[in-house]
Amino acid sequence: MSSGAGFIWPVRVYYEDTDSGGVVYYANYLRFLERARTEWLRAAGFEQTHLQDDFDVIFMVRSVAIEYLRPAVFNDLLEVTVELKSCGRSRIDVLQRVRRRGAQGEEMTLVEAQVGLACVNCQSFKPVRIPEPVGVALRKT
Amino acid sequence: MSSGAGFIWPVRVYYEDTDSGGVVYYANYLRFLERARTEWLRAAGFEQTHLQDDFDVIFMVRSVAIEYLRPAVFNDLLEVTVELKSCGRSRIDVLQRVRRRGAQGEEMTLVEAQVGLACVNCQSFKPVRIPEPVGVALRKT
Amino acid sequence: MSSGAGFIWPVRVYYEDTDSGGVVYYANYLRFLERARTEWLRAAGFEQTHLQDDFDVIFMVRSVAIEYLRPAVFNDLLEVTVELKSCGRSRIDVLQRVRRRGAQGEEMTLVEAQVGLACVNCQSFKPVRIPEPVGVALRKT
Amino acid sequence: MSSGAGFIWPVRVYYEDTDSGGVVYYANYLRFLERARTEWLRAAGFEQTHLQDDFDVIFMVRSVAIEYLRPAVFNDLLEVTVELKSCGRSRIDVLQRVRRRGAQGEEMTLVEAQVGLACVNCQSFKPVRIPEPVGVALRKT
Repeated sequence: MSSGAGFIWPVRVYYEDTDSGGVVYYANYLRFLERARTEWLRAAGFEQTHLQDDFDVIFMVRSVAIEYLRPAVFNDLLEVTVELKSCGRSRIDVLQRVRRRGAQGEEMTLVEAQVGLACVNCQSFKPVRIPEPVGVALRKT
Repeated sequence: MSSGAGFIWPVRVYYEDTDSGGVVYYANYLRFLERARTEWLRAAGFEQTHLQDDFDVIFMVRSVAIEYLRPAVFNDLLEVTVELKSCGRSRIDVLQRVRRRGAQGEEMTLVEAQVGLACVNCQSFKPVRIPEPVGVALRKT
Repeated sequence: MSSGAGFIWPVRVYYEDTDSGGVVYYANYLRFLERARTEWLRAAGFEQTHLQDDFDVIFMVRSVAIEYLRPAVFNDLLEVTVELKSCGRSRIDVLQRVRRRGAQGEEMTLVEAQVGLACVNCQSFKPVRIPEPVGVALRKT
Repeated sequence: MSSGAGFIWPVRVYYEDTDSGGVVYYANYLRFLERARTEWLRAAGFEQTHLQDDFDVIFMVRSVAIEYLRPAVFNDLLEVTVELKSCGRSRIDVLQRVRRRGAQGEEMTLVEAQVGLACVNCQSFKPVRIPEPVGVALRKT
């Protein structure tokens, strides 16, 4: 269980991320969220390629509950956070936010998401126990 | 309030939709869901370009709660459904499923999502009343 | 060598395809082009999943020379064409166009692309001979 | 006219960029190329949002000739380069490469692309003269 703000990863908004409504396309925030989770795992010492090679596991997203509060636009420099909420036998739940600095430098939350991930076998996609060192490291984030 | 299976839209899975895990990338289901909602609006008589031109409104996604039950893979022919759950003053909630036929022809639900949309002004993005003819037509779907 | 207009596949422009410039994002035309090539292969009798299972091959894009002539916008209904220009031992070259009907019903070419594909082994990605029945069928398109 | 290696921008490959063939999807390299061009403009002193506000112009891609030499895979850390080849009245041409370090630390070119861009008016999309300070700055990159 993490208490602090957790891990933070910067994401720049490029044209590819926006749509003709002038804002970031709603599905693309899920790409931002995953980039941050990937870097959070890396910062905890685990390359996902190694998780596959060494432990035969990958983390698969099982559920996302996402709220779109304010739109991000082209050229925004966003911060994406990752905060571990729970770490079970084969499932972890994280709280993620996409934030931006406002005109007065204040922090604004644009998107908030609860993401549930299952640790599954690479081939069978069946749930398996989270490798011990991974669980230990993630609980420290 | 709709009771039947609602609207159905076919979606083919191309390489662009998959990732190196061998399955459809989790964010891309949100693209499928929106294609179906767009076609559901069109089938109800409303081109989104006309909603903008005639009523100055667009529907913006406010929330998505999505469960990933089974993975879709390259070349799958999927069905995406749209079912209106509630239609308020400026907000609609829909239940959407991504389905596929199994080996015995049985229907399998791969993804289930509850999507909340707000009817907002094109320029200000502020919530506005759903145009009368749109509300009437959607309630009939 | 094909002489006619070749194969035609319809593509609808959704929000996911556009950017905040108000037009279809330049990389996304390559997604449209591949959808058409996939359906062209299917129409010729070859599912790409079967090409892998039966012949151990996939077609990989080696080069694209694409000209962006006019922009497509949200909600456009486009036509994407595929025309075989040459079919060698392990390489095929196709000419593809993205078209739209204009206000007077006239045909407008928005994008034109020459795409070179190599037939490669699924595992090694090394060029291999195009399977005989595939070459025969494609030359008839 | 630039002589050196030009501008370099790092790009990490995430799941979103790959496809079920196990490699980066061919259209996604165009996203990487544009990220690098955006950062190249920024490094030269020009935010694209300012180009629009101050000069009423955007750069639109007119043509891309891209060669796919070697595939990139999940988790690769790539370098994307931008090198100005010519800068005319309203058009610039850049050479871009996507590179990766090999096992012995040697530099491998995965993708090479020539991209032609037109400086156009934001509203009309008609070609206009490249703003003087922009042309001056780009020629120095």
